[in-house]
Amino acid sequence: MTSVRDASFELFRRHGMTTIFGNPGSTELPMLGPFPDDFRYVLGLQEAVAVGMADGFAQASGNVTHVNLHTAPGVGNGVGAIFNARANRAPLLVTAGQQARSLITMQANLTNRDAVEVPKPYVKYSHEPPRAVDVPFALAQAIHNATLPPAGPAFVSIPMDDWLREIEPVDYVSQIARSVGGATRPSAEQISGLARRLREAKRPALVAGPDVDASGGWDAAVALVESQHLAVWAAPPTNGSRIGFPESHPAFQGMLPPAVAPLAQALAGYDFVLVAGSSVFPYYPNIPGDFLAEGTELVAITCDPDEAARAPMGEAIVADVGLTLRALADELSEPADRQPPPARAELEPFPPGEQLSGGEVHAVLAELFPEDGVIVLESPSSTAALRNQLRLSRPGSYYFSASGGLGFGLSASVGVQLAQPERQVVCVLGEGSAQYAITAFWTAAAYDVPVKFLVLRNNEYSILKWFATLEEVSGAPALDLPALDVAATAQSYGVQSSTVAATERGAAGEELHAALAHALAQDGPRLVQVDVAPGMALA
Amino acid sequence: MTSVRDASFELFRRHGMTTIFGNPGSTELPMLGPFPDDFRYVLGLQEAVAVGMADGFAQASGNVTHVNLHTAPGVGNGVGAIFNARANRAPLLVTAGQQARSLITMQANLTNRDAVEVPKPYVKYSHEPPRAVDVPFALAQAIHNATLPPAGPAFVSIPMDDWLREIEPVDYVSQIARSVGGATRPSAEQISGLARRLREAKRPALVAGPDVDASGGWDAAVALVESQHLAVWAAPPTNGSRIGFPESHPAFQGMLPPAVAPLAQALAGYDFVLVAGSSVFPYYPNIPGDFLAEGTELVAITCDPDEAARAPMGEAIVADVGLTLRALADELSEPADRQPPPARAELEPFPPGEQLSGGEVHAVLAELFPEDGVIVLESPSSTAALRNQLRLSRPGSYYFSASGGLGFGLSASVGVQLAQPERQVVCVLGEGSAQYAITAFWTAAAYDVPVKFLVLRNNEYSILKWFATLEEVSGAPALDLPALDVAATAQSYGVQSSTVAATERGAAGEELHAALAHALAQDGPRLVQVDVAPGMALA
Repeated sequence: MTSVRDASFELFRRHGMTTIFGNPGSTELPMLGPFPDDFRYVLGLQEAVAVGMADGFAQASGNVTHVNLHTAPGVGNGVGAIFNARANRAPLLVTAGQQARSLITMQANLTNRDAVEVPKPYVKYSHEPPRAVDVPFALAQAIHNATLPPAGPAFVSIPMDDWLREIEPVDYVSQIARSVGGATRPSAEQISGLARRLREAKRPALVAGPDVDASGGWDAAVALVESQHLAVWAAPPTNGSRIGFPESHPAFQGMLPPAVAPLAQALAGYDFVLVAGSSVFPYYPNIPGDFLAEGTELVAITCDPDEAARAPMGEAIVADVGLTLRALADELSEPADRQPPPARAELEPFPPGEQLSGGEVHAVLAELFPEDGVIVLESPSSTAALRNQLRLSRPGSYYFSASGGLGFGLSASVGVQLAQPERQVVCVLGEGSAQYAITAFWTAAAYDVPVKFLVLRNNEYSILKWFATLEEVSGAPALDLPALDVAATAQSYGVQSSTVAATERGAAGEELHAALAHALAQDGPRLVQVDVAPGMALA
Repeated sequence: MTSVRDASFELFRRHGMTTIFGNPGSTELPMLGPFPDDFRYVLGLQEAVAVGMADGFAQASGNVTHVNLHTAPGVGNGVGAIFNARANRAPLLVTAGQQARSLITMQANLTNRDAVEVPKPYVKYSHEPPRAVDVPFALAQAIHNATLPPAGPAFVSIPMDDWLREIEPVDYVSQIARSVGGATRPSAEQISGLARRLREAKRPALVAGPDVDASGGWDAAVALVESQHLAVWAAPPTNGSRIGFPESHPAFQGMLPPAVAPLAQALAGYDFVLVAGSSVFPYYPNIPGDFLAEGTELVAITCDPDEAARAPMGEAIVADVGLTLRALADELSEPADRQPPPARAELEPFPPGEQLSGGEVHAVLAELFPEDGVIVLESPSSTAALRNQLRLSRPGSYYFSASGGLGFGLSASVGVQLAQPERQVVCVLGEGSAQYAITAFWTAAAYDVPVKFLVLRNNEYSILKWFATLEEVSGAPALDLPALDVAATAQSYGVQSSTVAATERGAAGEELHAALAHALAQDGPRLVQVDVAPGMALA
């Protein structure tokens, strides 16, 4: 006879879900013990961290990933990170324990009342099975829903006394054996129509969004750009959860600005814009204007029907981004006879000043960054500078919180490194953003996950001061962050850490170079904290 | 002409809500700046901490308290703490910024899509005003909903461009001037009927729950118990968010066990049980049996209609607990001629062993604890030991997470101390539970909030090991917590900290006494971490 538990773990095995992230409570114990030998459990000390690690692992492994939370309060602590995972299109199975069935109606302690409501509106599926024998089937449905495009989190609440119930073959065998697939390409007519418009355009451009990388469309995008001499822009970095095109490529023009009027201005010279794998657009902040200049046509390819529906202008095709780019590249393999795009504009020089700027820090990082390294970024005041300095140019090299939510970077970096042990992960944080998931340092140390952390410390919420200026707000409290010492905190969790203090600019740069080089040469997690000038770093 | 912002701050002033807890983002800046001189902003570095601090402040001040969060990801990070606040019946106004109205429909970055869904099902009210001029009215409604019994959190989502809009008197003057009240007492017939049953009972008992303290019913409970010679039990500590009766009183018998069968057994000798201000009951773990022994009648007084409806046995009266106890005490001022209850059973002796037990630690704390001190407790493996050793006996001396959710204790202690600067707050934590809201140490240090923290470190999730034994689960992963050093982490945030390491038992006790005495004598926040034996501490 089989138990609900055995059937469920068999389901997990079939999907390769043998790493489980979580933070356990009493309601999860019957699922967790005895823990099968072929599974690995990765503990986060708070639920936002457990979900963030699973998010990174799911994106970097390309596989649906399981995160197990404690009934109501555990899921509640994870809602912000579930929101991030939804925006990142990370395929997550989120499970939570629930009070025993006999105690739910009386709302005994730790009952997850209205359990399916808690993670809404951020999950694609939310269910509490009405019978114990439905648990494996519900888990299978959640896995399918999480992986079908657009990928995202799906939730199942499981009463703690369900796991040891017996289950008949009719209730699970066919249910857990199913597979589903949802990656589709447009019709031949749509492809040939799009190809014709690209061919006939005078100055066409590609806007490469995060889903180019997630859908495996990187090589097709490069082939299409090179044969058609497209100018390439990155989608606005505000929600560029991944990089969709090599940023050192001669066709690459830079990142689109994230506000309506400047973005339309950046695209004004193009008569045809193909947007691949980005929303149109992740606008922010609020600088109103026309959405496109007259004479610019725009077609977006997205796997997300809602993303297609909600854009304020242009056409959209709902299909797999990678398959569509491949079909277009095949159709347009003949080189176009138009001129290649001009070289990218030179960057602004570093601002003058006594202290290192964020851009200078990233220039040092660029000198040392391994060729196959991976960046996980959550340094809001230096996002643009990092992109401009590093010019990442390999698939799967960059992860960022598409939602704008903080707490993703530090925790996700641990998950990315666990999923990709052969590539060096460098996690770049602000000292403020590090605080939203600070206990992930413990997991990095306890599981010896060799992420290298680079923390830029400027004693303020720089991006908020920048926004305050833009919004003409003065006198807001709590925009300064004195006395945060992420190096000391990380050290307290077991991550060996050092600080490059604010000294003379040139000496600080040299010291940073030495400290970073040393950290990168060590096994295990290491952290370098560096004092930087206040304000935004754009170059 | 008045702005939406000025009208809203006038509303806050009228309700004494001049302390605002929060973690700001760009969508909150137009509310926050310029910040009025008569308001205080208390920054939390993560939203769970901001909500937890506000929860403590609301409970300890008895006043509705405002916590301001960042749009979708900020509210998401706070949902677990909002769940706690709901269980604690803390009157909270939770506000969050929202993207500008012109950018919401296109789902621009940081749009809080379906904003009113995010904090559900844990808020009593959730609204996003359809027009800017409705903001003060919506805030007023949220405040009323938060404070009306049973108190709890209420939510308003506010588009960031609403604050500077002009507002006409008709849209706010009468709306923000309103007051509402909901504390009621039962009818004279209900009171006299209840009084008669108490008078005629042979062995009556009172179960004192958290709402006795919250409703100001402490003195009435003592008067009733003393005139009627009632035996007194505390509601099960699993969700005893406050203490409802002096635990050093001769009538006090101890804490009810939190599972069905043992609880019925504890009450089996009583023919009439009056439950004041507790659910019936916060059962946990699952030990089935009869809910009450034959011959035991039970009547519960609660301000919460749902709590009254969902109990599996007994009668219930929905009314204000304090007013009802006062009416009963007045009706029963003639002393009963039954015998006073027997003295409480002796505690079990401390278990033998080489290391300090949690109970011994709390015995040391009891020696030093100031008479008017306040405990905020989140040490799941030593909850019972603390209650048994300290026997807290003044109103408003104890705060605990009624939900079972972790992260409340550390953050709430900062809020309680800010609300009650004249009383010494001692926050007792496990090294595991401290992790759920660890950055609250920064707020304690940055605002010089003089909480004294006592951290019991046993290198494990003791309560989970205890549950695993009860549930007959073996081989669950991640129940050990090696290498956590809360003293080092707190120190990294600026809280001066020391550790009493695991040494010979007697010497460790003396060292702890000295360290605690020193910490209590200092200004500002201080932390003492003490190594204790693994396992549960019940005495």
